[in-house]
Amino acid sequence: MFLTRSEYDRGVNTFSPEGRLFQVEYAIEAIKLGSTAIGLQTSEGVVLAVEKRVTSPLIEADSIEKIFEVDSHLGCAMSGLIADSRTLIDRARVEAQNHWFTYDEKMSVESVTQSVSNLALAFGDDDAEPGAMSRPFGVALLFAGIDENGPQLFHLDPSGTFIRYDAKAIGSASEGAQQSLQDVFHKSMNLETAIKEVMKILKQVMEEKLTSKNVELAIVTKADGFQRYNKQQLEDLVKEL
Amino acid sequence: MFLTRSEYDRGVNTFSPEGRLFQVEYAIEAIKLGSTAIGLQTSEGVVLAVEKRVTSPLIEADSIEKIFEVDSHLGCAMSGLIADSRTLIDRARVEAQNHWFTYDEKMSVESVTQSVSNLALAFGDDDAEPGAMSRPFGVALLFAGIDENGPQLFHLDPSGTFIRYDAKAIGSASEGAQQSLQDVFHKSMNLETAIKEVMKILKQVMEEKLTSKNVELAIVTKADGFQRYNKQQLEDLVKEL
Amino acid sequence: MFLTRSEYDRGVNTFSPEGRLFQVEYAIEAIKLGSTAIGLQTSEGVVLAVEKRVTSPLIEADSIEKIFEVDSHLGCAMSGLIADSRTLIDRARVEAQNHWFTYDEKMSVESVTQSVSNLALAFGDDDAEPGAMSRPFGVALLFAGIDENGPQLFHLDPSGTFIRYDAKAIGSASEGAQQSLQDVFHKSMNLETAIKEVMKILKQVMEEKLTSKNVELAIVTKADGFQRYNKQQLEDLVKEL
Amino acid sequence: MFLTRSEYDRGVNTFSPEGRLFQVEYAIEAIKLGSTAIGLQTSEGVVLAVEKRVTSPLIEADSIEKIFEVDSHLGCAMSGLIADSRTLIDRARVEAQNHWFTYDEKMSVESVTQSVSNLALAFGDDDAEPGAMSRPFGVALLFAGIDENGPQLFHLDPSGTFIRYDAKAIGSASEGAQQSLQDVFHKSMNLETAIKEVMKILKQVMEEKLTSKNVELAIVTKADGFQRYNKQQLEDLVKEL
Amino acid sequence: MFLTRSEYDRGVNTFSPEGRLFQVEYAIEAIKLGSTAIGLQTSEGVVLAVEKRVTSPLIEADSIEKIFEVDSHLGCAMSGLIADSRTLIDRARVEAQNHWFTYDEKMSVESVTQSVSNLALAFGDDDAEPGAMSRPFGVALLFAGIDENGPQLFHLDPSGTFIRYDAKAIGSASEGAQQSLQDVFHKSMNLETAIKEVMKILKQVMEEKLTSKNVELAIVTKADGFQRYNKQQLEDLVKEL
Amino acid sequence: MFLTRSEYDRGVNTFSPEGRLFQVEYAIEAIKLGSTAIGLQTSEGVVLAVEKRVTSPLIEADSIEKIFEVDSHLGCAMSGLIADSRTLIDRARVEAQNHWFTYDEKMSVESVTQSVSNLALAFGDDDAEPGAMSRPFGVALLFAGIDENGPQLFHLDPSGTFIRYDAKAIGSASEGAQQSLQDVFHKSMNLETAIKEVMKILKQVMEEKLTSKNVELAIVTKADGFQRYNKQQLEDLVKEL
Amino acid sequence: MFLTRSEYDRGVNTFSPEGRLFQVEYAIEAIKLGSTAIGLQTSEGVVLAVEKRVTSPLIEADSIEKIFEVDSHLGCAMSGLIADSRTLIDRARVEAQNHWFTYDEKMSVESVTQSVSNLALAFGDDDAEPGAMSRPFGVALLFAGIDENGPQLFHLDPSGTFIRYDAKAIGSASEGAQQSLQDVFHKSMNLETAIKEVMKILKQVMEEKLTSKNVELAIVTKADGFQRYNKQQLEDLVKEL
Repeated sequence: MFLTRSEYDRGVNTFSPEGRLFQVEYAIEAIKLGSTAIGLQTSEGVVLAVEKRVTSPLIEADSIEKIFEVDSHLGCAMSGLIADSRTLIDRARVEAQNHWFTYDEKMSVESVTQSVSNLALAFGDDDAEPGAMSRPFGVALLFAGIDENGPQLFHLDPSGTFIRYDAKAIGSASEGAQQSLQDVFHKSMNLETAIKEVMKILKQVMEEKLTSKNVELAIVTKADGFQRYNKQQLEDLVKEL
Repeated sequence: MFLTRSEYDRGVNTFSPEGRLFQVEYAIEAIKLGSTAIGLQTSEGVVLAVEKRVTSPLIEADSIEKIFEVDSHLGCAMSGLIADSRTLIDRARVEAQNHWFTYDEKMSVESVTQSVSNLALAFGDDDAEPGAMSRPFGVALLFAGIDENGPQLFHLDPSGTFIRYDAKAIGSASEGAQQSLQDVFHKSMNLETAIKEVMKILKQVMEEKLTSKNVELAIVTKADGFQRYNKQQLEDLVKEL
Repeated sequence: MFLTRSEYDRGVNTFSPEGRLFQVEYAIEAIKLGSTAIGLQTSEGVVLAVEKRVTSPLIEADSIEKIFEVDSHLGCAMSGLIADSRTLIDRARVEAQNHWFTYDEKMSVESVTQSVSNLALAFGDDDAEPGAMSRPFGVALLFAGIDENGPQLFHLDPSGTFIRYDAKAIGSASEGAQQSLQDVFHKSMNLETAIKEVMKILKQVMEEKLTSKNVELAIVTKADGFQRYNKQQLEDLVKEL
Repeated sequence: MFLTRSEYDRGVNTFSPEGRLFQVEYAIEAIKLGSTAIGLQTSEGVVLAVEKRVTSPLIEADSIEKIFEVDSHLGCAMSGLIADSRTLIDRARVEAQNHWFTYDEKMSVESVTQSVSNLALAFGDDDAEPGAMSRPFGVALLFAGIDENGPQLFHLDPSGTFIRYDAKAIGSASEGAQQSLQDVFHKSMNLETAIKEVMKILKQVMEEKLTSKNVELAIVTKADGFQRYNKQQLEDLVKEL
Repeated sequence: MFLTRSEYDRGVNTFSPEGRLFQVEYAIEAIKLGSTAIGLQTSEGVVLAVEKRVTSPLIEADSIEKIFEVDSHLGCAMSGLIADSRTLIDRARVEAQNHWFTYDEKMSVESVTQSVSNLALAFGDDDAEPGAMSRPFGVALLFAGIDENGPQLFHLDPSGTFIRYDAKAIGSASEGAQQSLQDVFHKSMNLETAIKEVMKILKQVMEEKLTSKNVELAIVTKADGFQRYNKQQLEDLVKEL
Repeated sequence: MFLTRSEYDRGVNTFSPEGRLFQVEYAIEAIKLGSTAIGLQTSEGVVLAVEKRVTSPLIEADSIEKIFEVDSHLGCAMSGLIADSRTLIDRARVEAQNHWFTYDEKMSVESVTQSVSNLALAFGDDDAEPGAMSRPFGVALLFAGIDENGPQLFHLDPSGTFIRYDAKAIGSASEGAQQSLQDVFHKSMNLETAIKEVMKILKQVMEEKLTSKNVELAIVTKADGFQRYNKQQLEDLVKEL
Repeated sequence: MFLTRSEYDRGVNTFSPEGRLFQVEYAIEAIKLGSTAIGLQTSEGVVLAVEKRVTSPLIEADSIEKIFEVDSHLGCAMSGLIADSRTLIDRARVEAQNHWFTYDEKMSVESVTQSVSNLALAFGDDDAEPGAMSRPFGVALLFAGIDENGPQLFHLDPSGTFIRYDAKAIGSASEGAQQSLQDVFHKSMNLETAIKEVMKILKQVMEEKLTSKNVELAIVTKADGFQRYNKQQLEDLVKEL
C-alpha cells in the first residue's frame, strides 16, 4: 500500500493513479501536529480560543500568539506551521487594508477568506501569485468576523478549500473537540455561553491543565469588533470553570 | 503491469511506450473522487444540479458552492479539485466580460468553453498561457448556457477536450447517473420535467439522503438567464420527490 | 529488451545507445490510439474523411470536429491528441493569414505544412520557437489543399517529417486502410469516385457501424476551395454505400 | 523507521506522510552541534554568555566572536553554523538602522527579532525575501535588548519561531543548562547575580575548564546599552567563581 | 560492460571515467540508421548522391529531399534526423547570405562548414549559440561546393568535427560504400566518371532496387554552380547503369 | 555508517539527520590533498611558506605560485583547488583596492579576510553574492598582513569560518606541522627565528627533499610590507638548514 | 571501490568524501584518448608538433588542424575534444587582440594562458564567465610563444591549472613521450636540434608510420614569430629522420 503510494507522494503536482495529490493530504496532517484551536459563532458574535503550548516555565507565554487581529472587525486563529500562518495572515491584512482604502468600507469576512484561499491554492506554480510557495501551506485558519451578513466563522485548510461553520475545531485534538462542539451547539446560544462552552471543551481536550497562561481567547462583536481577552479576563474565566 | 507503467506516469509530458500520457488519465481519476454533478439541456433551457457533501452538521451548507454564474446567460457546474475549478471559472468570467466589452454582445457558450479549454490544455508548458499549471487540471466542468444557437450544454475534461452533450453526469456517481440520463432523456422534454428528472437521478445516486441542504440547482433560460434555486425552491422540489 | 530500453526512453532529448530518440517513437504510438483519418488526392481535388468516436448517444456529434479549415484553399484532418492538434492548426492558420496579408497571395500547401513542421520539431528546446513544447506533439496531420501546383496531400508526423502522398491513412486503423488505398488508388481517379472509395474504406475499418453521425468529410476543389459536407450530404453518401 | 523517513527528508519543502518537514528538524539538530550559549533577563538588564571552542593553543581567542552588537540597545548570541548567523545578524543590523533612520527611534527588540524571523522562514522560496536560502538556517539566536517594554530576551530557531524567555540556553549543552536556569531563575534576580549564575552554569556544562579565554559575555542595560566584557572583567569573573 | 557504462551515458555533458561523452557517440549511431549519402570531389566539380527511402508506392517521391542548395556555389547532403538537418542547413544558408551581403563575395566552403560546426558543437550549453540544442545533433552532413580553392567536399559529424575528404559516404551503408569509394577514387577522375561511380556504389549498397524515384543527385561545377538532376536526367543515368 | 550517510552528502544544502552539511566537510577534505602551507606571526612580521609540488624536472618551478600578494601590506598562502583559490584571491584584491580608493587607507587584515569569507560562505545560493559557487570552495587560505593592530595571521576554511592564529599549517601534512608549530612557537619569537623554524618544519613534513626550487616563502613586515623571497634568498636559507 | 565512487562522480560540483571532484579527473582522461602533441622550449624559440590521425586515405590531411596561431608571437597545440579546444582558442585570440588594441603591445604568453585558464575553470557556474560550460573542458593545451621574457611553453589542463614547462607532451602517448623529453632535453639545446628531437620522439610513440601527411609542426621564434611548417618542409624533415 505504502510502497506504491510512495511513488507519487513527493511531487506537489503529481497525481497518483487514483487522482490524489498526496502532498496536500500530508499538509493537512501537519495541522494534526499543531495546537488545538476552536471557533464558535453565535448571533451576538464569534469566539476564538487557542491552546498555547508553554513547554518551559521560563517562556514568557505572552510572546506566543496564535490569534491575530486582521482588521478591527476580523480575527484569525491558526494551527500548524507558524511560518506559513504568518504569510497567509499578512496577506489577509494587506487585502483588508487595500479594500478599505479603495472602497471605504470593511472587506467582508468571506472576501478576506477567499483572498487568502487564492494564495493558499497557488502552491507549486510560483508565478501564479506573489507569495505562493512550492508546497501547500501547512496551516489551517479560522476566520472570525462580523460584516453586513452578521457574525461569521470560516475554516480554511491547506487545499485552499474554505467553508463556513457554526463551530469548528482544528489542531491535534480537533476530532474530540469537534464532537463536543456538535453536542453543545445550538443556534440560539448567546455569546457568554459560547465563551464558556469553548473554554470547557478546550479544558477537556488539552493535555496540560488549563490556566490563564496557556490559553488565548478573542471575541468579535458588532459593538466592539475584535477584542483579545487580557490576563485578568482569562484568569476570571478559568476560575469560573 | 503497474510496474512498467510506473516508469512513465509521473512526468506530465512523458509518453509511455504505448503513446499514453498517464498524468492526464490520473487527473481524470481525480474527478471520480469529486461530488456528482448533472447537466441536462432541453429546448426551453438547461438544468445544472450538484450534490453537496455536507460532512458535518455544523457546516453552513450555503458556503459550499459548486455551481457558478459565469455570465448572465451562462452557468457552470464542477466536480473535482476546488482550487483548479476556481482558476478555470475565473478565466471563463474574464473571457466572457472581455467579449462583452469588446463586441457588445454575449460570448457564445462554445467560445467560452473553448477559451477555458485553451487554458486547460496548456499544462506543462508554463509560458504557453498565463495561468497554465505544471500539471493537468483535476477538474471537470459542465457549461450550461443560452446563445443565438439556443440552449447548450458542454462538458470539459482535464485533457482539454470539450464536447456538446444533451445530458451529462460527472463525479463519483457519474457512471450510474449517465445511464439513467440516457434512459429518461428525449429531445422533446420540457424544462420542468428535466428539473425533476435530474433531481430524481441525483437522489438515486447520492449516498446521503437528498435534502434541500445538500443539493444545489440552477437553470439557464432564454427569459431569465442564469437562475440559482433558493432554499425555498429546493425544499419544494425535494418535497415533491 | 525493454529493461535496457527503459533507461533512455523518458528523456525527450536523450539518445539510446543505438541512436534512437524513443519519446518521438512513443508519440507516434499515440496516433495509433486516435480515430482513423484518410486523405486522397485526385487531379480534381482532395478528399479528407475522419471517423468520429461518438461514445454516448447523448453526445451532440456536431461538436466533435476532426477536420479543420486552415484557409479557403486548405483543410487539415487530424488523429491523436486533440490539444496538440489545436496548437499546430492554430499555427497553420496564423501562417496562412500572415502570408496572405504580406504577399497578397495564397500560401502554398507545402509552405503551410513546412511552417507547422518547424513548430513540431522544435520540441525539447523551448526557446527555439514560440509555442514549442517540452515533448514531441502526439498528433499526425493530413494537409489537403490546392495551389498553383494543383491538388496536394501532405502527411506530417510527430518527428516533424512531412511527405507528399497520393493517399494516406492515419490513426488506429491506418494499417488496413493504407493497404486498401494502395489497392484502389490510380492516378486517373475522379473526385466523385475518390469520395466513395474513401468512405468505403472507412466503413470497412471502423468498429462502429458507419452513419452520417460518426463520420466527417471535406473536399478541397479548385472551384469551391475547402467545403465541409453537411449532414444531408453525409446521409446521402452513407445511403449510397 | 529510518528507511521510510528517508524518502521525505531531503526535500526542504516536502511533507512526510505525518505532515513533518524533516529538513527543518535536522537544522535544529545542527544547533546541538554548536557551542553552548545562555541568555538571562532580569529587571535590570539582560546577560548573554557563550562558550568559545578554542581548539588549539595557537588560536587568538579574541578572533572568535559569538556575541554580536546589533544596535546600541541590542545584542545577539548565536549557536550553530557561523555562516548562517552572519546573514541573519546582518539583516538584524540593517533593519535596526533602517528603523532608526526612518522613525528616529530605536527599533523594539521584538520587531528586530521578527524581521530576522521573516528571513529565517523564507527558506526554499528564493524569491520570497532577498537573502533567503534554499535550506533552513542552521543556527539559533538569542536576542537580548532593552526598549520601552524593558529588558527582553528572545529565542529564534531554524523554523523561524521566536518566543520570549526569561532565560534560555542553546547549543550542545543546552539541555543541562536549561534545567539549571530553571532551578536558579527568579523574577527578582538582580543583574549581578544573573551574571554569576550564568557563568556558573556555563562552567558546569563546558567540557573544557572555564577560563577568561574560552568564554564571551555581554550585558545590555538601560544605562549603558550593549556592553561586551573585556579580558580583565572576564578574568575577575572567572576568579570569583 | 553496459551496466557500468549506463551510469554515464545519458547526461550530455557528463564524462565517463574513461573521459568519453557517450551521448555524442550515440548521436553518431543515429546516422547509421539514416539513408546512405555519398559525396565525391573531382577537379571538375563535386557530386552528391543520396538514397531516398520510398516506403509506400503512394508517396510522392519528389517531396522527400535529402540534398539541399545552400548557396548557388554550395550544396549539402544529409543523413540522420531530418529535423536536426533542417536547423543546421538553415544556419548554413543564413551565414552564406550574410557573408554575401556583408562582403559582396561568396562565402568559402570551409567557412560555411565551420559556421555550421560552431552550432553543432554548442550542444548542452543553450546560451552559447542561438539555435543550440540540449543534445548533440543526430545528423551528418556532406558539404559540396566550389570557391577560390576549387571544388571541395567537407564532412561534418555530430561531435562538430569537420574534415575535408576526396570522397565520403555516410548513413546506414556507409561502411561498404566508403570501401568502394577508396577502391575507385583517383585524383584525375573526371566529373562524368565520378557521377557514374557514385551511382554504381549507391546501387550496390541499397537494399531496394535503384530507380530514378529513389535516388537524388546533384553536382556543383565551376560553370553552373549547384545543379540538381531532374527526373529525366536520373532516368537516363539509371538506364545507363 | 557510510550507507546512511550517502543519502545526504551530495546536496550542498541538505542537512543530514544529525544536522551536518557533508559537502562542506568533504571540501575540507580537499585541502588535505593539497600541498602543505605554513603561516607564523611574530611581533616583527608574519611568515608564509608553502611546499611546491614539482612533479617533473622539466617544470619551470617559478610558474607554480601558491603565495599571492593581495596588497602591499597583505599576502595570502593557499592549499587545495587552484581554481577556487584564484576566485577568492581576486575578491581579496578587489576589496582591498576598493577600500583604498574609497577611504584612502589600507584595508585591515581582518576586513579583507571577512570579505573573502562572505564570498566563501555564499555557496549554493548563486544570487547571494556575485562570484558565489554552487558548491563550497575547496581551498583553505592563510592571510598574513600588517595593519594598525600590528602583524596578523588569519585562517579561512571552506565553511567560511575565519580565525586568527599565532601559527597555522594547512594542507596534506598540516597535522604534523601544526603539532611542531605548537612546540616551537612562543610570543617573543623574532622574525628571523620564525623563518627558520617554518622552513625546518616544512623540511620535516615534506616527502620530497627540500630545495630552493620546491619551496616558496614570503614575509610581511612593517617596514617593507609584502616581500617574496627570491631564488638566491631561498638557496641561502636552504643551505643554512 | 568503484561502487562507492560512482555516487559522486557525475555531479560536476560534487565533492567525494575524500574531497575529489571526479568529473575533472575524467576530463583529464579524455585527453588520454586524444592524439599526441609535444612542445619544447629552447633559448632560440619554441617547437610544437602534433600527430594527425588520418583514418582514411580519402581524407585531405590539410583539413585536420591541431596547431593554431593565436597571435603573431603565439601558437597553441591541442589534444582532446576538438569542440572544446575551439572555444578556448577563440578566447585566447580575442584576449590577445583586445590587449593589442588596448595597450598597443603584445600580450604576454603567461597572460594569454591565464585568461584561457579563467574560462577553463569557470565550469559548472555558467554565469561566472561568458562561454563557461556546465562541465570541465575535455582538452589540454600547449601555449608556445615569445615575449619580453623570451621563449616560453605553458601547459593548461582541464582543471584550469597552468604550469610553465621546458618540454611537455600531452595526449595518448604522452607518458612515453614525456620520459623521452626528459632524457634528451638540456637547457643549451638549439632550435634545430629541438625540432629534430621532437620529431624523433613523435615518430617513436606514434602507432602509424610518421609521414609528412600525418604530422603538423610549428615554431615560434623571435625573428619570425609563429611559423607553420609547410608540406615541403615537413617532407624534408621526415626524410632526414
